[in-house]
Amino acid sequence: MKLTEIYWHLRSDIGKIEQALEKTIEAEHPVLRDASTHLLKAGGKRIRPVFVLLSAQFGNYDLNRIQQIAVPLELIHMASLVHDDVIDDADLRRGKETVKAKWDNRVAMYSGDYIFARAIEMATYCEQSEVHLILANAMKEMSIGEVEQIRDQYNEEQDLRKYLRRIKRKTALLIAVSCQLGAVVAEAKPNVQKQLYWFGYYVGMAYQVTDDILDFIGTEKELGKPAGSDLQQGNLTLPALYGMRRDDTLKQWISEHFRHPYGNHLPIDDVIARVKQNGAIADSQKLARQYLQKAFLALEQLPNTRAKKSLRQIGEYIEKRNS
Amino acid sequence: MKLTEIYWHLRSDIGKIEQALEKTIEAEHPVLRDASTHLLKAGGKRIRPVFVLLSAQFGNYDLNRIQQIAVPLELIHMASLVHDDVIDDADLRRGKETVKAKWDNRVAMYSGDYIFARAIEMATYCEQSEVHLILANAMKEMSIGEVEQIRDQYNEEQDLRKYLRRIKRKTALLIAVSCQLGAVVAEAKPNVQKQLYWFGYYVGMAYQVTDDILDFIGTEKELGKPAGSDLQQGNLTLPALYGMRRDDTLKQWISEHFRHPYGNHLPIDDVIARVKQNGAIADSQKLARQYLQKAFLALEQLPNTRAKKSLRQIGEYIEKRNS
Repeated sequence: MKLTEIYWHLRSDIGKIEQALEKTIEAEHPVLRDASTHLLKAGGKRIRPVFVLLSAQFGNYDLNRIQQIAVPLELIHMASLVHDDVIDDADLRRGKETVKAKWDNRVAMYSGDYIFARAIEMATYCEQSEVHLILANAMKEMSIGEVEQIRDQYNEEQDLRKYLRRIKRKTALLIAVSCQLGAVVAEAKPNVQKQLYWFGYYVGMAYQVTDDILDFIGTEKELGKPAGSDLQQGNLTLPALYGMRRDDTLKQWISEHFRHPYGNHLPIDDVIARVKQNGAIADSQKLARQYLQKAFLALEQLPNTRAKKSLRQIGEYIEKRNS
Repeated sequence: MKLTEIYWHLRSDIGKIEQALEKTIEAEHPVLRDASTHLLKAGGKRIRPVFVLLSAQFGNYDLNRIQQIAVPLELIHMASLVHDDVIDDADLRRGKETVKAKWDNRVAMYSGDYIFARAIEMATYCEQSEVHLILANAMKEMSIGEVEQIRDQYNEEQDLRKYLRRIKRKTALLIAVSCQLGAVVAEAKPNVQKQLYWFGYYVGMAYQVTDDILDFIGTEKELGKPAGSDLQQGNLTLPALYGMRRDDTLKQWISEHFRHPYGNHLPIDDVIARVKQNGAIADSQKLARQYLQKAFLALEQLPNTRAKKSLRQIGEYIEKRNS
C-alpha cells in the first residue's frame, strides 16, 4: 500500500493545507517567495500535517482550527530543511564560486529564519496557550539536536544513548508534537493527547532508524545519493555503531576515516557488505521494529476509529520500507 | 553624558536582566553555552532591555513581568547578530580553513536558531496574548530586511524609499517593539503604548542613519573596522545615496565598484572626502535629526516622569553621537 492510499480519504483536507502553505509563503517578498516556493514544489510527504489531521479526528475535527497548527508544523520542518541546505550547499561548493555560494547560503539562512517566524506568527492564532510553548520547545530541541550532530561529527567515541537522544531531537519530537497538537486543537481528552504524543514519538524514532538503515542498504537511485553517505560525511548512525561493536576491522576503517576525513580512505562498499554480514543491519531493523511495537501499543489505548486504522497503516508502511 | 549615566537609576534592574539573560542561555548544551556566553560577554549596550524598563515605568512596573519580555527581546537581537556573523565569518575566511570555518558557521547558525527558540519559549509566559504576535511579526520583518539587504547588495539602482524600508525592518522595528511591549506588559494605557511605539520607531531610524553616517566619518579605532566598510561590501547607505545624487564622479566610482566588487577599484578615501564636501553627510545628519524630532514629539504626548526624561536623554545622546 502506498502512503497516499493510506490517507486517501483525507486528500481534500490535505489539498487545503497545501493551498494554505502556498498562501502563507507566497506573500511579502520576491526573493523569499522564490526560495520558499521552490522548497514547497520540491514536495515531501507532508507527513506532519497528515499526523495532525488524523490525530485531530480523535476530538472535534474542525479544519480551520487544525490548519492553524498543521501549517506551522510543516513550516518548521521546511525551515529546518532550509537550514540544513545552508550547510550542504557550502559543502558541495567548497572552494568554487564562493560569491554565488555565499549569496545562496545567506538567502537560505534568512529564508529559514523567515519561515520559522511565519510559523510562529501563524500559530499565535491558536487559542490553546500550551500550543505556543510546545512549538517553541520543539524548535529549541531541534536546534540542540543539530548542534549535537555537528559536535559528534567525525567523533568515533559515541554510544547508543547519544545517537538515540540526537534522533529524538532531530526527528521524533516534531512528529510526536504533530500528533499531540492535532489532538490539542481538537480538544481531545488529555489521555488521548498523551497516547498520540507517544505514538508519534515512537513512530518518529522508527522512521529515523529506518532512514539510517536505508542509507546503508538502499540503492543510489532510491536514495538520490550514494549509499553510505552518512558515514562518508562523518555521521555515525545506528548500523555503523552496531557494526563497530562487532567488527574490529570496521571500527579501524571508520576511525581512520574520521581522523582523516578528506583522505578518501573509506572502502565504502566493503563497509556496507560488512554491516550487512555482521548483523548490524538486522539489529538496527530489530530496534526499529521495537519502536513500532511501542507505537502500536500507544495506539491500542485509543478508540477504534478509521483514523486509528490509518495511523497503524502508516506505522506498517514504515516497517515495510524497513525490509 | 554617557549612556550608562542616563539610566544609572535603573542599574540594579538592568543587572537582574543581565543575570536572567545569562541564566537563560547557560543551560542545556555545552557547545551552545560556549557560543552564547561568548556573545553575552561581548556585551553590547542592552539598549532594548533599557527601553523596555523605561517604557514599563509608564504603567505598573513589575520587574518579574518586565523581564519576561526584556530578555526575549535582547535574545532576538543577539540571535540576529549571530546569524549576521555566519556571513561575516564566511567572508573573512574565504578560501582558507574552510573546514573550521564551516564548523563555526554551522554552530553559529544553529546557535542563532536556538536563541530565537529560547526567546519565543520565554515570551510564551507573558500573559498578554498580543505579545506573541508582535514578537513573531518583528522576527519575520527582520528576516525580510536581511533578505532585502542581500538582494540590494552591489545594486546601484536604489532609492531612498528602499533604504528607509530596509533600516526600518533591520533596526527600527525591534526598538519600536521594545518600547511598545514594555508598556504592554505594564498594562499602560493604549495611547501610551502607541506613543512609545512611535518614539522607539523614530529613535531606531535615527540610530541606524547615525550608524550609517559614522561608517563614513568615524575613525578606524572608533568603528573597529575601516571607514567606508559598508560601501566596500556593496551596501548602499544614506550618505552614499545622497552623495551619488549630487556627484557624478562618485556615482561612477560606486557603479564601477559594484560591477567589479573584487577589483579593489574604489578610492575609498576620496569617496569619503567627497560625501563630506558635497553635503551628503550634512543631509544625512539632517534626516537623523528630523527622525529625532518626531521621536521627541511622540514623547511630548506622555506624562512628565523621570522615565520620559531618560528616554529624551537617550535620544539626545544619539544626536550628539551624530555630530
